[in-house]
Amino acid sequence: MASDPLVVFTPSGKRGRFPVGTPVLTAARQLGVDLDSVCGGRGICSKCQITPSYGEFPKHGVTVADDALTAWNEVEERYDSRRGLKPGRRLGCQAQVMSDIVIDVPPESQVHKQVVRKAASARIIEMDAATKLYTVTVEEPDMHEPSGDLERLEKALRGQGVEEMVQADLSLLGKLQTVLRKGKFTVTVAVNKSHQDRVARIMEMWPGTYEGGIYGLAIDLGSTTVAAHLTDLQTGEVVASSGIMNPQIRFGEDLMSRVSYAMMNPGGDVEMTRAVREAINTLAEEIAKEGEIDPSLIMETVFVCNPVMHHLLLGIDPVELGQAPFALATSESMTIDARDLELSALNPRARVYILPCIAGHVGADAAAVALSEEPGKSVDLALIVDVGTNAEILLGDRSRVLACSSPTGPAFEGAQISSGQRAAPGAIEAIRIDPETKEPRFRVIGSDKWSDEEGFGDDIAGTGITGICGSGIIEAVAELRIAGLMDESGLIGSAIQTGTHRCEPDGRTNSYLVYDGTPSGGPRVTVTQGDIRAIQLAKSALYAGARLLMDERGVDKVDRVVLAGAFGAHISAKHAMVLGMIPDVPLDRVTSAGNAAGTGARLALCNVGARKEIETVVRQITKVETAIEPKFQEHFVNANAIPHKTDPFPELRQVTDLPEVSFNTGGRDGGDAEGGRRRRRRRA
Amino acid sequence: MASDPLVVFTPSGKRGRFPVGTPVLTAARQLGVDLDSVCGGRGICSKCQITPSYGEFPKHGVTVADDALTAWNEVEERYDSRRGLKPGRRLGCQAQVMSDIVIDVPPESQVHKQVVRKAASARIIEMDAATKLYTVTVEEPDMHEPSGDLERLEKALRGQGVEEMVQADLSLLGKLQTVLRKGKFTVTVAVNKSHQDRVARIMEMWPGTYEGGIYGLAIDLGSTTVAAHLTDLQTGEVVASSGIMNPQIRFGEDLMSRVSYAMMNPGGDVEMTRAVREAINTLAEEIAKEGEIDPSLIMETVFVCNPVMHHLLLGIDPVELGQAPFALATSESMTIDARDLELSALNPRARVYILPCIAGHVGADAAAVALSEEPGKSVDLALIVDVGTNAEILLGDRSRVLACSSPTGPAFEGAQISSGQRAAPGAIEAIRIDPETKEPRFRVIGSDKWSDEEGFGDDIAGTGITGICGSGIIEAVAELRIAGLMDESGLIGSAIQTGTHRCEPDGRTNSYLVYDGTPSGGPRVTVTQGDIRAIQLAKSALYAGARLLMDERGVDKVDRVVLAGAFGAHISAKHAMVLGMIPDVPLDRVTSAGNAAGTGARLALCNVGARKEIETVVRQITKVETAIEPKFQEHFVNANAIPHKTDPFPELRQVTDLPEVSFNTGGRDGGDAEGGRRRRRRRA
Repeated sequence: MASDPLVVFTPSGKRGRFPVGTPVLTAARQLGVDLDSVCGGRGICSKCQITPSYGEFPKHGVTVADDALTAWNEVEERYDSRRGLKPGRRLGCQAQVMSDIVIDVPPESQVHKQVVRKAASARIIEMDAATKLYTVTVEEPDMHEPSGDLERLEKALRGQGVEEMVQADLSLLGKLQTVLRKGKFTVTVAVNKSHQDRVARIMEMWPGTYEGGIYGLAIDLGSTTVAAHLTDLQTGEVVASSGIMNPQIRFGEDLMSRVSYAMMNPGGDVEMTRAVREAINTLAEEIAKEGEIDPSLIMETVFVCNPVMHHLLLGIDPVELGQAPFALATSESMTIDARDLELSALNPRARVYILPCIAGHVGADAAAVALSEEPGKSVDLALIVDVGTNAEILLGDRSRVLACSSPTGPAFEGAQISSGQRAAPGAIEAIRIDPETKEPRFRVIGSDKWSDEEGFGDDIAGTGITGICGSGIIEAVAELRIAGLMDESGLIGSAIQTGTHRCEPDGRTNSYLVYDGTPSGGPRVTVTQGDIRAIQLAKSALYAGARLLMDERGVDKVDRVVLAGAFGAHISAKHAMVLGMIPDVPLDRVTSAGNAAGTGARLALCNVGARKEIETVVRQITKVETAIEPKFQEHFVNANAIPHKTDPFPELRQVTDLPEVSFNTGGRDGGDAEGGRRRRRRRA
Repeated sequence: MASDPLVVFTPSGKRGRFPVGTPVLTAARQLGVDLDSVCGGRGICSKCQITPSYGEFPKHGVTVADDALTAWNEVEERYDSRRGLKPGRRLGCQAQVMSDIVIDVPPESQVHKQVVRKAASARIIEMDAATKLYTVTVEEPDMHEPSGDLERLEKALRGQGVEEMVQADLSLLGKLQTVLRKGKFTVTVAVNKSHQDRVARIMEMWPGTYEGGIYGLAIDLGSTTVAAHLTDLQTGEVVASSGIMNPQIRFGEDLMSRVSYAMMNPGGDVEMTRAVREAINTLAEEIAKEGEIDPSLIMETVFVCNPVMHHLLLGIDPVELGQAPFALATSESMTIDARDLELSALNPRARVYILPCIAGHVGADAAAVALSEEPGKSVDLALIVDVGTNAEILLGDRSRVLACSSPTGPAFEGAQISSGQRAAPGAIEAIRIDPETKEPRFRVIGSDKWSDEEGFGDDIAGTGITGICGSGIIEAVAELRIAGLMDESGLIGSAIQTGTHRCEPDGRTNSYLVYDGTPSGGPRVTVTQGDIRAIQLAKSALYAGARLLMDERGVDKVDRVVLAGAFGAHISAKHAMVLGMIPDVPLDRVTSAGNAAGTGARLALCNVGARKEIETVVRQITKVETAIEPKFQEHFVNANAIPHKTDPFPELRQVTDLPEVSFNTGGRDGGDAEGGRRRRRRRA
């Protein structure tokens, strides 16, 4: 009697046998395959799209017949006719397993791909990894010329250009003799050469010739998200990318609240250290699974992070970073054992490189951006802004580079916003308000269509509209200003003042209604006066930081702006300028660097020379401490308004000037002083 | 109401309150103070001698009155009159506590001092330890010139001559900021500079000026015993010495049986590794207690050991050392973290230095002997023999040094001997047989008197006579030959042949009765024909090794002999030569080097230059592998006899020639071939 059909999922490689008639989605869930579904298998959300493969699969040991899945059914027919399925796609909740089958889960159908939008840039990196593979033949022992197996291995490696003293961890030394004899004295070793000490470390060994790969992780350890790129150390190829929320969020959304947590709670720093290390282990395991490699093949990890995360990762109480003079325990780069960070998911001998910090508020993440974007090699004057929970700001050209950090808070990431949420399916990510009708239209993550385009409703049927994310709130505030619904000070007008019912009273101020989902049980998405204040605080901090560097440099304009960071990739440059987040430059002089910090981490992972380079560069950067510069406060207060100014991009719209309106009613929420006080409290 | 009297013991520092009238011995036992007693408190054994101290003791917070102990009693009176108590001494079992008292336990009264006789030699060592203390004042942080606390500490250390890159373990980095601020930016750091890499490691730190000491352990890890010297790394002073049995003995008395255990039992090597590491932790804790220091002040440990112990300590299966070509996993010296050896009793960052091995059978212990005895600097040709379970043999002068190892087995240590025991109270350690009367007299550990001297019986009343230790059996065999009771082949004559009832039949051969304790319930101590065979095997192996080196060097005599090793200190040179253990040299050309391996370990602990020196010296030593040299077998067989030759020291005795006697009766126990077969088996 034949056994149940075999189901193989790619790229995960997970496989199992299931009774005839099992829906693919059910099989995926039972195997723990990362296949999304938000409608509960009703054929509505289309999140569970899969691509069945037919024919011979010697790799999987499977032959897939044409009728391995049930035929196309009416639910799929309906979905396809209304919104279109890509050729070859099926809905995993509808298609049922009839015989052996190989099923590919496309990236869009994987759940956690959508949570974190950081992705490895495609930048070309010259490979010269610290860890390399060598296959050598070792002299056999001779009792008339006694020497240790390790010493003969060292001699063989010297013949291949490894000049350093060779060291093997005791855990490897214990298996060296067996491995050598098993391979008849031919052995493949992974050798790590640090630029910071003069030894060559054996990381792993295989008898004979090893054909497999060795890997490294480039990790961008952010306050909110942790993003990792699993990278082949021989080719530089990014094998898998994955992200995870930073579990420290439960101790405080922004960095200073985490520092406070450590100050207020004895052992709080230890708790946060443990949480982030555990998260990194989980991430490493998941990414290895995704890349279909054994996590013990991960030989190296490079970290970029801000100073508070740097200290918490290393197990150092960040309390000194919460008060002047913001002294780092150590600012230099570090090369240490992964086991010292309790990163047990990796190879037990894996090494960790952490980029240097620039100053108490300017971390290894800023150093990584400097490594990736190379402001010190720029001919024109570049302003590089890495927008996250904290903004890292670099200003420079060939003559000089300056750096500072500005505590923008999490508003740009959708936190501390009334209808705010992270960038995830269902979040409004872009918005336009018609200056005539004052009506909004918007785009939601999960659909490429605008809300007034056909098919939008179907696209988002699975998730609904759940809130507004960082890029969405920035656009909303800028659009409110452009549409004349908000004055220069940031006050939203009333329905009477603006002539639209979407401006509705909300306590003593007004809110703007973006979307009302209550008829279908969904949320009301509004932009409140408080949201605008939060964005004003954040954008003022960012702008003030940039201005401070420009003052230091003695300029009042820059030649180009680079928006970096996970979030930078999604900010509309135009709206950012309307808002006054960044100094005005021609639109074509604003570029997105994607996750520049992550790219810097990958550079340091793939090229050991890049480590030396950034260590040199960091020493030459002029550090500017925003927290103690009186001018920062001044710039901050001045930047609070959303000024009356010319629309920088008239070609995109009819109006050429932002409207002169004022809605200040003298209410208690009207002044800028309030914002200033909140700022100071956070820095105190 | 006054509380019970306080009793403070030195040097342990243990203290407690006891009711008036408590005997000092009882108090010591309740506190776990190391105070010996073998007679059960009857005032006979005198092992519990203590020295009460009177007067003011601010350190202990005690004032001791003249009558703090009960008066001298008749038991003490009797003991003193018969055998004499040193001035100031009392018997701990007799003296009772009346009021607060400080009591010193002299070394002779401590139990475990007697178990292991290895002791640190008094050799002068030039101090230049790898770990040193520095007190520095660090620049305070300046946010206009941001740099890490560690980098400013590094700068301050550079001002005191620490040129290397300064590294701090994460566990220290985590407390650096607190310590610096507590000491108002003055800090004392223990800095370790390895000669094998180019970093300076911070081992420990104290706020402000630290007045205490830092310590190291020199450990001689023998097959049978583990001896440690706790050494002050600033002064070189040996603060405490202590020993412990190697718990691996339960897996096999000699090295090859431990290798067999590892071969036969999967995981057996892991078991042995765990056992020895645990023992070292115990030893470290005990020695720290004895030296009255916190074990976390132990910053470094130097190990010397034979290759099998070397591998087992490091967690390497020693199986390759049990078969040709006897390949070591590694032969070079190693500088590693103590935590890699699970030595948790020490400072968590403590470093370990292990001397290089010379060859598969010639270990770091032989290297340590070479470091201590410096054969390569000798003007005349020196033969250095380190006698333990294995004998390490070095032959050399300024022109060349040769080394080999010879598996003597444990007979020289009293094991595999019918009445054998380790060197401990009650063991016969020296023996003389009157050539006329054939009657023996002997000395027992625990008394300085010979058995025919007055007071001997009282001295040993506590322990009785329990057996015969290594030096005793060697003397016994030599004396049997000198007294004409044993022939050249090693056969003991019968009562009729020898004319003494002490030669008594024992199966098909004869034994010699040294002592009959049966009337008082004690043992019969005899030297059997089997004992003589065991000693013959051991001495032949030792002699053959020495001869092999002499052949290699092309000499048939040496200028001087150095007997090293715990046991070497107690061997009678004359009896060793009668036995044919060592080549004949004038008596005044035989010296004892004490525990030369331990001295080498102390040298490497106290002087980092000594580490470089021995690494160079070891590379220049000519290694000779006894196991595969046909000549070794030849020498071994030839050395089996106890030859007819002139008594080398006639001035010590009337007879000038050893008697020409032969007791060979053609019995099955007569041939040398048997010994040869046993040898080969052990090496197979």
